[in-house]
Amino acid sequence: MKHSPRLTQLIDALRALPGIGPKSAQRMAFHLLQDGRPAAHALSRALDAALASVKRCRRCRMLTEEELCSICASQQRESALLCAVESPADVVAIEQSGSYRGRYFVLMGHLSPLDGVGPEQLGVRELEAILDEGGVRELILATNPTVEGEATAHFLADLAVRRGLMASRIAHGVPIGGEIEYVDGGTLARALAGRQTV
Amino acid sequence: MKHSPRLTQLIDALRALPGIGPKSAQRMAFHLLQDGRPAAHALSRALDAALASVKRCRRCRMLTEEELCSICASQQRESALLCAVESPADVVAIEQSGSYRGRYFVLMGHLSPLDGVGPEQLGVRELEAILDEGGVRELILATNPTVEGEATAHFLADLAVRRGLMASRIAHGVPIGGEIEYVDGGTLARALAGRQTV
Repeated sequence: MKHSPRLTQLIDALRALPGIGPKSAQRMAFHLLQDGRPAAHALSRALDAALASVKRCRRCRMLTEEELCSICASQQRESALLCAVESPADVVAIEQSGSYRGRYFVLMGHLSPLDGVGPEQLGVRELEAILDEGGVRELILATNPTVEGEATAHFLADLAVRRGLMASRIAHGVPIGGEIEYVDGGTLARALAGRQTV
Repeated sequence: MKHSPRLTQLIDALRALPGIGPKSAQRMAFHLLQDGRPAAHALSRALDAALASVKRCRRCRMLTEEELCSICASQQRESALLCAVESPADVVAIEQSGSYRGRYFVLMGHLSPLDGVGPEQLGVRELEAILDEGGVRELILATNPTVEGEATAHFLADLAVRRGLMASRIAHGVPIGGEIEYVDGGTLARALAGRQTV
Protein backbone atom coordinates (compact mmCIF):
# COMPACT_ATOMS: atom_id res chain seq x y z
CA MET A 1 0.00 0.00 0.00
CA LYS A 2 1.30 3.44 -0.90
CA HIS A 3 1.62 5.98 1.90
CA SER A 4 0.50 9.55 1.33
CA PRO A 5 3.26 11.89 0.04
CA ARG A 6 4.03 13.72 3.32
CA LEU A 7 4.03 10.46 5.26
CA THR A 8 6.39 8.92 2.67
CA GLN A 9 8.67 11.94 3.02
CA LEU A 10 8.75 11.56 6.81
CA ILE A 11 9.48 7.82 6.57
CA ASP A 12 12.31 8.53 4.11
CA ALA A 13 13.81 11.19 6.41
CA LEU A 14 13.73 8.72 9.31
CA ARG A 15 15.27 5.97 7.16
CA ALA A 16 18.27 8.21 6.59
CA LEU A 17 19.12 7.87 10.30
CA PRO A 18 21.89 5.38 11.10
CA GLY A 19 20.68 1.85 11.79
CA ILE A 20 17.08 2.49 10.77
CA GLY A 21 15.45 0.25 8.14
CA PRO A 22 12.16 0.72 6.31
CA LYS A 23 10.09 -1.13 8.91
CA SER A 24 11.49 0.82 11.89
CA ALA A 25 11.12 4.10 10.01
CA GLN A 26 7.45 3.34 9.34
CA ARG A 27 6.89 2.40 12.97
CA MET A 28 8.52 5.65 14.10
CA ALA A 29 6.47 7.74 11.69
CA PHE A 30 3.21 6.18 12.89
CA HIS A 31 4.31 6.73 16.48
CA LEU A 32 5.13 10.37 15.77
CA LEU A 33 1.76 10.97 14.13
CA GLN A 34 -0.39 9.24 16.71
CA ASP A 35 -2.88 11.01 19.00
CA GLY A 36 -1.84 14.40 20.26
CA ARG A 37 1.53 14.08 18.52
CA PRO A 38 3.59 15.17 21.54
CA ALA A 39 6.60 13.12 20.35
CA ALA A 40 6.58 14.80 16.94
CA HIS A 41 6.34 18.31 18.37
CA ALA A 42 9.10 17.56 20.90
CA LEU A 43 11.39 16.15 18.22
CA SER A 44 10.71 19.04 15.85
CA ARG A 45 11.47 21.60 18.58
CA ALA A 46 14.58 19.73 19.74
CA LEU A 47 15.88 19.48 16.18
CA ASP A 48 15.43 23.17 15.47
CA ALA A 49 17.00 24.17 18.81
CA ALA A 50 19.98 21.87 18.25
CA LEU A 51 20.44 23.06 14.66
CA ALA A 52 20.47 26.65 15.90
CA SER A 53 22.77 26.19 18.93
CA VAL A 54 25.03 23.17 18.58
CA LYS A 55 28.27 23.86 16.77
CA ARG A 56 31.86 22.59 16.82
CA CYS A 57 34.41 23.34 19.53
CA ARG A 58 36.78 25.93 18.09
CA ARG A 59 39.75 23.88 19.27
CA CYS A 60 38.93 20.15 19.11
CA ARG A 61 35.87 20.10 16.78
CA MET A 62 33.70 18.29 19.36
CA LEU A 63 29.98 19.19 19.28
CA THR A 64 29.24 21.94 21.82
CA GLU A 65 27.09 25.00 22.39
CA GLU A 66 29.99 27.16 23.60
CA GLU A 67 33.09 28.43 21.82
CA LEU A 68 35.12 25.74 23.61
CA CYS A 69 33.77 22.33 24.65
CA SER A 70 33.79 21.45 28.36
CA ILE A 71 36.93 19.33 27.96
CA CYS A 72 38.97 21.99 26.13
CA ALA A 73 37.73 24.62 28.59
CA SER A 74 38.66 22.55 31.65
CA GLN A 75 41.85 23.32 33.55
CA GLN A 76 41.81 19.81 35.06
CA ARG A 77 42.78 17.97 31.89
CA GLU A 78 46.36 16.97 31.06
CA SER A 79 47.23 19.24 28.17
CA ALA A 80 50.25 17.11 27.26
CA LEU A 81 48.02 14.31 25.95
CA LEU A 82 45.95 14.68 22.78
CA CYS A 83 43.77 11.83 21.57
CA ALA A 84 42.59 11.86 17.94
CA VAL A 85 39.25 10.11 17.35
CA GLU A 86 36.94 9.76 14.36
CA SER A 87 33.67 10.90 15.94
CA PRO A 88 32.03 12.63 18.92
CA ALA A 89 30.65 9.22 19.96
CA ASP A 90 34.23 8.00 20.41
CA VAL A 91 34.91 10.87 22.82
CA VAL A 92 31.82 9.87 24.82
CA ALA A 93 32.91 6.21 24.90
CA ILE A 94 36.47 7.01 26.04
CA GLU A 95 35.18 9.47 28.68
CA GLN A 96 32.82 6.80 30.00
CA SER A 97 35.74 4.42 30.43
CA GLY A 98 37.09 6.92 32.97
CA SER A 99 40.64 6.03 31.96
CA TYR A 100 41.79 9.15 30.14
CA ARG A 101 42.51 12.63 31.47
CA GLY A 102 43.95 14.33 28.38
CA ARG A 103 42.25 16.29 25.62
CA TYR A 104 40.78 15.20 22.28
CA PHE A 105 40.78 16.08 18.62
CA VAL A 106 37.68 14.99 16.70
CA LEU A 107 38.42 14.28 13.03
CA MET A 108 34.74 13.82 12.09
CA GLY A 109 35.64 10.97 9.75
CA HIS A 110 38.67 9.22 8.33
CA LEU A 111 40.80 9.67 5.22
CA SER A 112 38.78 8.41 2.27
CA PRO A 113 40.00 9.96 -0.98
CA LEU A 114 37.29 8.26 -3.05
CA ASP A 115 34.62 10.05 -0.97
CA GLY A 116 36.50 13.35 -1.23
CA VAL A 117 37.66 13.23 2.40
CA GLY A 118 41.25 14.41 2.62
CA PRO A 119 43.34 16.00 5.40
CA GLU A 120 41.52 19.32 4.83
CA GLN A 121 38.10 17.80 5.71
CA LEU A 122 39.49 16.15 8.86
CA GLY A 123 40.77 19.47 10.20
CA VAL A 124 44.41 18.44 9.94
CA ARG A 125 45.45 22.09 9.65
CA GLU A 126 43.78 22.83 13.02
CA LEU A 127 45.42 19.74 14.51
CA GLU A 128 48.83 20.88 13.27
CA ALA A 129 48.25 24.29 14.85
CA ILE A 130 47.61 22.62 18.22
CA LEU A 131 50.73 20.45 17.89
CA ASP A 132 52.76 23.53 16.94
CA GLU A 133 51.70 25.35 20.13
CA GLY A 134 54.13 23.14 22.01
CA GLY A 135 51.94 21.98 24.90
CA VAL A 136 51.24 18.51 23.54
CA ARG A 137 53.77 15.76 24.27
CA GLU A 138 51.96 12.69 22.95
CA LEU A 139 49.40 12.21 20.18
CA ILE A 140 47.27 9.12 20.89
CA LEU A 141 45.71 7.67 17.74
CA ALA A 142 42.31 6.19 18.57
CA THR A 143 40.87 5.90 15.06
CA ASN A 144 38.91 2.73 14.28
CA PRO A 145 40.80 -0.50 13.46
CA THR A 146 39.61 -0.43 9.83
CA VAL A 147 41.68 0.06 6.69
CA GLU A 148 40.72 3.76 6.54
CA GLY A 149 41.18 4.23 10.29
CA GLU A 150 44.66 2.69 10.15
CA ALA A 151 45.61 4.85 7.16
CA THR A 152 44.40 7.94 9.01
CA ALA A 153 46.35 6.96 12.15
CA HIS A 154 49.47 6.42 10.04
CA PHE A 155 49.08 9.83 8.40
CA LEU A 156 48.56 11.62 11.74
CA ALA A 157 51.43 9.76 13.43
CA ASP A 158 53.69 11.20 10.76
CA LEU A 159 52.63 14.75 11.68
CA ALA A 160 53.58 14.15 15.32
CA VAL A 161 56.86 12.37 14.63
CA ARG A 162 57.96 15.11 12.21
CA ARG A 163 57.58 17.56 15.12
CA GLY A 164 59.57 15.36 17.48
CA LEU A 165 56.43 14.41 19.45
CA MET A 166 55.44 10.94 20.57
CA ALA A 167 52.72 9.19 18.60
CA SER A 168 50.97 6.12 19.98
CA ARG A 169 48.21 3.80 18.76
CA ILE A 170 45.63 2.32 21.16
CA ALA A 171 46.02 -1.44 21.69
CA HIS A 172 43.93 -3.92 19.74
CA GLY A 173 43.26 -7.41 21.02
CA VAL A 174 40.77 -9.70 22.71
CA PRO A 175 38.06 -7.59 24.43
CA ILE A 176 37.64 -8.00 28.20
CA GLY A 177 34.88 -10.49 28.93
CA GLY A 178 35.12 -11.87 25.38
CA GLU A 179 35.77 -15.55 24.77
CA ILE A 180 38.85 -16.33 22.72
CA GLU A 181 36.91 -19.13 21.00
CA TYR A 182 34.55 -16.56 19.44
CA VAL A 183 37.07 -13.82 18.63
CA ASP A 184 37.80 -13.32 14.91
CA GLY A 185 41.16 -14.21 13.39
CA GLY A 186 42.23 -10.63 12.70
CA THR A 187 41.73 -9.65 16.33
CA LEU A 188 43.57 -12.75 17.57
CA ALA A 189 46.48 -11.99 15.26
CA ARG A 190 46.68 -8.48 16.73
CA ALA A 191 46.36 -9.85 20.28
CA LEU A 192 49.28 -12.23 19.70
CA ALA A 193 51.44 -9.66 17.93
CA GLY A 194 50.84 -7.18 20.74
CA ARG A 195 51.55 -9.63 23.60
CA GLN A 196 53.38 -8.24 26.60
CA THR A 197 55.75 -9.89 29.06
CA VAL A 198 54.09 -10.63 32.39
CA MET B 1 30.51 12.97 30.01
CA LYS B 2 27.57 15.38 30.03
CA HIS B 3 26.22 16.53 26.69
CA SER B 4 25.31 20.19 26.17
CA PRO B 5 21.64 21.05 27.00
CA ARG B 6 20.31 21.26 23.41
CA LEU B 7 22.11 18.08 22.43
CA THR B 8 20.68 16.32 25.50
CA GLN B 9 17.22 17.53 24.52
CA LEU B 10 17.62 16.15 20.98
CA ILE B 11 18.89 12.79 22.27
CA ASP B 12 15.92 12.60 24.66
CA ALA B 13 13.46 13.37 21.87
CA LEU B 14 15.01 10.62 19.72
CA ARG B 15 14.93 8.16 22.65
CA ALA B 16 11.17 8.61 22.83
CA LEU B 17 10.90 6.90 19.43
CA PRO B 18 9.85 3.24 19.55
CA GLY B 19 12.75 0.79 19.72
CA ILE B 20 15.44 3.45 20.27
CA GLY B 21 17.77 3.14 23.27
CA PRO B 22 20.22 5.72 24.64
CA LYS B 23 23.13 4.55 22.48
CA SER B 24 21.15 4.62 19.22
CA ALA B 25 19.66 8.00 20.10
CA GLN B 26 23.13 9.45 20.67
CA ARG B 27 24.37 7.98 17.39
CA MET B 28 21.38 9.49 15.56
CA ALA B 29 21.89 12.91 17.17
CA PHE B 30 25.57 12.97 16.18
CA HIS B 31 24.62 11.88 12.67
CA LEU B 32 22.00 14.64 12.44
CA LEU B 33 24.45 17.29 13.60
CA GLN B 34 27.38 16.28 11.42
CA ASP B 35 28.76 18.36 8.56
CA GLY B 36 26.25 20.26 6.49
CA ARG B 37 23.40 18.76 8.52
CA PRO B 38 21.30 17.80 5.50
CA ALA B 39 19.70 14.90 7.41
CA ALA B 40 18.59 17.19 10.25
CA HIS B 41 17.12 19.79 7.90
CA ALA B 42 15.33 17.10 5.88
CA LEU B 43 13.89 15.50 9.02
CA SER B 44 12.80 18.83 10.47
CA ARG B 45 11.05 19.81 7.22
CA ALA B 46 9.44 16.37 6.83
CA LEU B 47 8.18 16.45 10.42
CA ASP B 48 6.63 19.88 10.08
CA ALA B 49 5.03 19.00 6.72
CA ALA B 50 3.60 15.76 8.09
CA LEU B 51 2.33 17.45 11.26
CA ALA B 52 0.57 20.03 9.11
CA SER B 53 -0.94 17.68 6.51
CA VAL B 54 -1.34 14.15 7.83
CA LYS B 55 -4.61 13.54 9.63
CA ARG B 56 -7.01 10.67 10.18
CA CYS B 57 -9.38 9.26 7.56
CA ARG B 58 -12.84 10.54 8.44
CA ARG B 59 -14.26 7.05 8.08
CA CYS B 60 -11.67 4.46 9.18
CA ARG B 61 -9.18 6.59 11.19
CA MET B 62 -6.20 5.53 9.02
CA LEU B 63 -3.49 8.18 8.58
CA THR B 64 -4.08 10.11 5.36
CA GLU B 65 -3.75 13.58 3.84
CA GLU B 66 -7.26 13.53 2.32
CA GLU B 67 -10.68 13.48 3.91
CA LEU B 68 -10.92 9.77 3.06
CA CYS B 69 -7.94 7.39 2.88
CA SER B 70 -7.22 5.67 -0.44
CA ILE B 71 -8.87 2.44 0.74
CA CYS B 72 -12.09 4.06 1.96
CA ALA B 73 -12.21 6.18 -1.22
CA SER B 74 -11.69 3.22 -3.53
CA GLN B 75 -14.69 1.71 -5.35
CA GLN B 76 -12.76 -1.54 -5.84
CA ARG B 77 -12.91 -2.70 -2.22
CA GLU B 78 -15.53 -5.11 -0.91
CA SER B 79 -17.63 -2.93 1.34
CA ALA B 80 -19.22 -5.97 3.02
CA LEU B 81 -15.97 -6.77 4.84
CA LEU B 82 -14.61 -4.58 7.62
CA CYS B 83 -11.37 -5.47 9.39
CA ALA B 84 -10.66 -3.88 12.78
CA VAL B 85 -6.93 -3.45 13.56
CA GLU B 86 -5.01 -1.77 16.36
CA SER B 87 -2.66 0.42 14.29
CA PRO B 88 -1.92 1.87 10.84
CA ALA B 89 1.09 -0.48 10.65
CA ASP B 90 -1.33 -3.44 10.81
CA VAL B 91 -3.20 -2.07 7.78
CA VAL B 92 0.11 -1.85 5.89
CA ALA B 93 1.04 -5.42 6.88
CA ILE B 94 -2.32 -6.88 5.82
CA GLU B 95 -2.29 -4.92 2.55
CA GLN B 96 1.18 -6.24 1.82
CA SER B 97 -0.07 -9.81 2.26
CA GLY B 98 -2.33 -9.11 -0.74
CA SER B 99 -4.98 -11.39 0.74
CA TYR B 100 -7.69 -8.94 1.74
CA ARG B 101 -9.97 -6.81 -0.42
CA GLY B 102 -12.29 -5.32 2.20
CA ARG B 103 -12.03 -2.12 4.20
CA TYR B 104 -10.49 -1.38 7.60
CA PHE B 105 -11.20 0.33 10.87
CA VAL B 106 -8.14 1.52 12.77
CA LEU B 107 -8.68 1.53 16.54
CA MET B 108 -5.36 3.27 17.29
CA GLY B 109 -4.85 1.12 20.36
CA HIS B 110 -6.67 -1.48 22.41
CA LEU B 111 -8.95 -1.36 25.43
CA SER B 112 -6.81 -0.57 28.44
CA PRO B 113 -8.89 0.93 31.27
CA LEU B 114 -5.84 1.47 33.49
CA ASP B 115 -4.32 3.73 30.83
CA GLY B 116 -7.61 5.54 30.34
CA VAL B 117 -8.27 3.89 26.97
CA GLY B 118 -11.94 2.97 26.71
CA PRO B 119 -14.36 2.48 23.78
CA GLU B 120 -14.51 6.26 23.29
CA GLN B 121 -10.76 6.53 22.62
CA LEU B 122 -10.87 3.64 20.13
CA GLY B 123 -13.56 5.35 18.06
CA VAL B 124 -16.17 2.71 18.85
CA ARG B 125 -18.95 5.25 18.23
CA GLU B 126 -17.65 5.80 14.67
CA LEU B 127 -17.36 2.05 14.19
CA GLU B 128 -20.96 1.56 15.33
CA ALA B 129 -22.08 4.23 12.87
CA ILE B 130 -20.43 2.29 10.02
CA LEU B 131 -22.02 -0.97 11.16
CA ASP B 132 -25.41 0.75 11.39
CA GLU B 133 -25.19 1.95 7.77
CA GLY B 134 -26.00 -1.60 6.75
CA GLY B 135 -23.30 -2.20 4.11
CA VAL B 136 -21.04 -4.34 6.28
CA ARG B 137 -21.77 -8.08 6.49
CA GLU B 138 -18.75 -9.31 8.46
CA LEU B 139 -16.52 -7.66 11.04
CA ILE B 140 -13.07 -9.27 11.03
CA LEU B 141 -11.22 -8.83 14.32
CA ALA B 142 -7.48 -8.52 13.66
CA THR B 143 -6.35 -7.11 17.00
CA ASN B 144 -3.12 -8.50 18.45
CA PRO B 145 -3.16 -11.88 20.25
CA THR B 146 -2.44 -10.25 23.62
CA VAL B 147 -4.72 -10.08 26.67
CA GLU B 148 -5.78 -6.51 25.75
CA GLY B 149 -6.15 -7.37 22.07
CA GLU B 150 -8.36 -10.37 22.88
CA ALA B 151 -10.49 -8.29 25.24
CA THR B 152 -10.88 -5.65 22.55
CA ALA B 153 -11.82 -8.26 19.94
CA HIS B 154 -14.37 -9.73 22.33
CA PHE B 155 -15.89 -6.31 22.97
CA LEU B 156 -16.12 -5.49 19.26
CA ALA B 157 -17.51 -8.90 18.35
CA ASP B 158 -20.37 -8.16 20.69
CA LEU B 159 -21.22 -4.96 18.79
CA ALA B 160 -21.45 -6.90 15.52
CA VAL B 161 -23.40 -9.83 16.91
CA ARG B 162 -25.92 -7.52 18.59
CA ARG B 163 -26.62 -6.10 15.11
CA GLY B 164 -27.03 -9.55 13.59
CA LEU B 165 -23.73 -9.23 11.70
CA MET B 166 -21.04 -11.87 11.47
CA ALA B 167 -17.94 -11.39 13.63
CA SER B 168 -14.76 -13.38 12.98
CA ARG B 169 -11.32 -13.55 14.57
CA ILE B 170 -8.18 -14.09 12.47
CA ALA B 171 -6.55 -17.50 12.98
CA HIS B 172 -3.65 -17.95 15.37
CA GLY B 173 -1.21 -20.82 15.03
CA VAL B 174 2.21 -21.85 13.83
CA PRO B 175 3.59 -19.21 11.42
CA ILE B 176 4.42 -20.33 7.88
CA GLY B 177 8.12 -21.15 7.62
CA GLY B 178 8.35 -21.48 11.40
CA GLU B 179 9.62 -24.67 13.02
CA ILE B 180 7.25 -26.33 15.45
CA GLU B 181 10.21 -27.16 17.69
CA TYR B 182 10.81 -23.44 18.32
CA VAL B 183 7.20 -22.25 18.57
CA ASP B 184 6.06 -21.22 22.06
CA GLY B 185 3.52 -23.25 24.04
CA GLY B 186 0.72 -20.69 23.82
CA THR B 187 0.92 -20.61 20.03
CA LEU B 188 1.03 -24.41 19.81
CA ALA B 189 -2.04 -24.64 22.06
CA ARG B 190 -3.89 -22.27 19.71
CA ALA B 191 -2.67 -24.19 16.67
CA LEU B 192 -4.00 -27.46 18.09
CA ALA B 193 -7.28 -25.99 19.28
CA GLY B 194 -7.83 -24.40 15.86
CA ARG B 195 -6.98 -27.53 13.82
CA GLN B 196 -9.04 -28.10 10.71
CA THR B 197 -10.08 -31.32 8.97
CA VAL B 198 -8.03 -31.95 5.83
